[in-house]
Amino acid sequence: MEQNLRIPGPTPLPPSALQASARQMIDHRGPEFAQMQQEIIAGLKPLFRTENDIILLTASGTGGLEAAIVNLFSPGEQVLAISIGSFGERFAKIARAYQLDVVPVSFPWGETADPSVVDQALKEHPQVKGVLVTHNETSTGLTNNLAALSKVIAKYEVLFLVDSISAVGAIEMRVDDWGIDVMITGSQKAWMAPPGVAMVTVSPQAWTASRQSKLPRFYFDFAQYEEWMAKGQTPWTPAVSVYFALQNGIKLIKDEGLENVLARQQRVADYTRQEVRRLGLQLFGNPGIGFYSNTVTAISIPESLDGEAIRKSLRQQYNIVLGGGLGKLKGRIVRIGHMGWVQESHITPVFTALQKVLAHTEA
Amino acid sequence: MEQNLRIPGPTPLPPSALQASARQMIDHRGPEFAQMQQEIIAGLKPLFRTENDIILLTASGTGGLEAAIVNLFSPGEQVLAISIGSFGERFAKIARAYQLDVVPVSFPWGETADPSVVDQALKEHPQVKGVLVTHNETSTGLTNNLAALSKVIAKYEVLFLVDSISAVGAIEMRVDDWGIDVMITGSQKAWMAPPGVAMVTVSPQAWTASRQSKLPRFYFDFAQYEEWMAKGQTPWTPAVSVYFALQNGIKLIKDEGLENVLARQQRVADYTRQEVRRLGLQLFGNPGIGFYSNTVTAISIPESLDGEAIRKSLRQQYNIVLGGGLGKLKGRIVRIGHMGWVQESHITPVFTALQKVLAHTEA
Repeated sequence: MEQNLRIPGPTPLPPSALQASARQMIDHRGPEFAQMQQEIIAGLKPLFRTENDIILLTASGTGGLEAAIVNLFSPGEQVLAISIGSFGERFAKIARAYQLDVVPVSFPWGETADPSVVDQALKEHPQVKGVLVTHNETSTGLTNNLAALSKVIAKYEVLFLVDSISAVGAIEMRVDDWGIDVMITGSQKAWMAPPGVAMVTVSPQAWTASRQSKLPRFYFDFAQYEEWMAKGQTPWTPAVSVYFALQNGIKLIKDEGLENVLARQQRVADYTRQEVRRLGLQLFGNPGIGFYSNTVTAISIPESLDGEAIRKSLRQQYNIVLGGGLGKLKGRIVRIGHMGWVQESHITPVFTALQKVLAHTEA
Repeated sequence: MEQNLRIPGPTPLPPSALQASARQMIDHRGPEFAQMQQEIIAGLKPLFRTENDIILLTASGTGGLEAAIVNLFSPGEQVLAISIGSFGERFAKIARAYQLDVVPVSFPWGETADPSVVDQALKEHPQVKGVLVTHNETSTGLTNNLAALSKVIAKYEVLFLVDSISAVGAIEMRVDDWGIDVMITGSQKAWMAPPGVAMVTVSPQAWTASRQSKLPRFYFDFAQYEEWMAKGQTPWTPAVSVYFALQNGIKLIKDEGLENVLARQQRVADYTRQEVRRLGLQLFGNPGIGFYSNTVTAISIPESLDGEAIRKSLRQQYNIVLGGGLGKLKGRIVRIGHMGWVQESHITPVFTALQKVLAHTEA
């Protein structure tokens, strides 16, 4: 029985992505690589809805978050870190690791960011130079209302940094309309590629900030990328096989059409949520002004049950792999990933199995 | 005509590595990944000849160099940076980017490091806390005599950091015998895997230093790896498909036997050098107490010719891709990579073609 990998990334890869991953190596300083990199970047721009530059890093998404921090700020500068869960906290932790003065604006796990609270915080902290926000909080299955947040943030002279690692490509993203200075995503999410490449947009304001920034950096230094990408290269050897798959994933999205992809992601997510309710279970959290996530669904586990035991049964008896709760949510939720190469038919067996596991557990 | 990729990494992948790269994704926080990671690390230890811990980073080799620097030192601390070429200079640049006080010990490109000069420099700089050295200088095709250097370095209370990115697995390496505290390599070199994973050894002394180090870090933080690798995981999503190929590459080396691999690398390199001479060409540089590299051969281009034009002809007419000269050696040398999955039969067509190109150019 083939594994049904339903974690929020790495996501299952379509056959064409596996095939692309198996292509023979090429010279990363030759014309074929240059053309591929150019094609990837040109392909991403309309999907991100941006005219900004795009940098490709050989790293996990977290490396992309770190790149954003170390290139834009100097020690002691103040940033507002909006958090609605584990990945929001991670973004703030990175800023603290690099000696930024972090003003936390934390909402309880299970809620989304309230723009009026953010507005108030920015009013009270006129020294803030940047705002960090998680687009889709993978740990809670909730998506911030980035359009609404962007309107508030636009009122202030701040850099706007968005972790959209598990959103863009599956959930609406408008980098330019929303005034996002740096937006980060990862190859293993909506892009139907293996992990290993982080994609980062850089606005003109972000470029300016990067030239003033005094944080130490080398591997993630935007200036190095600027120099080498102009030649169709990367400063350090890139994850060539992941590039192959990423190029393929972008082509798949382009062929299907971004609007169709977003509609499919919405439809599969709606179906997933409907199945949760059909089993008499509850979705975790309350989206408020935001949304239940279209890429990952978090299910509250009734108090009498243990989410980790349920995951173990699903894995061992049905070869279905779900995500567990992170940190304080361990055992209290399970998470179903549904981004990238996904249809309702991938989700149905999860609930068929879950229903049996629950019936057995409750018996 | 299939491309004959003869750059010093990425290296051509054997069929089994391509097949491994095309495996479906797995849960990077599940038992299958934990087992694979354990197998990779257990497999690497005898190949590195070490009992030290090994950390796997999702990054290029340069990310591994940066990890070594940011985890072991604090701003203002002094390091001795031995350089015999472009990659030695890069290691020093990383140290400078992180505000270390770098004492450069630079030998002309085309030479190897003289242990007595290093000894003298260490005597004159008693504050030095660490020594940085490139094992195999990919830019010049020369290999330092690490055994001889290690004897000198052992006389001092310093941390010994070795960039063995393009050596270990193909050129003799004895991490423990040579007292190396941090040794770095990359998946795309001798390991017959795509780029994307850096492997880093950490000695007990390096662990101690990492707990005292005050340089800011997050993505490359050894402490995060220590915590997560104990659980069979990585702190951030790893480059799963590269792990698959790396696991395969280690198995190939184990099956062939390390001694046989090293002997084959020696044989293929000897053959390459013999072919250089047969064509009436000169090897670049003079190994002195070191060696001509067994993983990359640099050929001096006669003054009347242009190495870049020769590379272009080889690429366009024969689909053979060589490395060019880096920095000041651009046009003056060409470089033939021969590490990992390589036999004499991969090298022969290079010289057949080179001979024709040279005859045509000189005509």
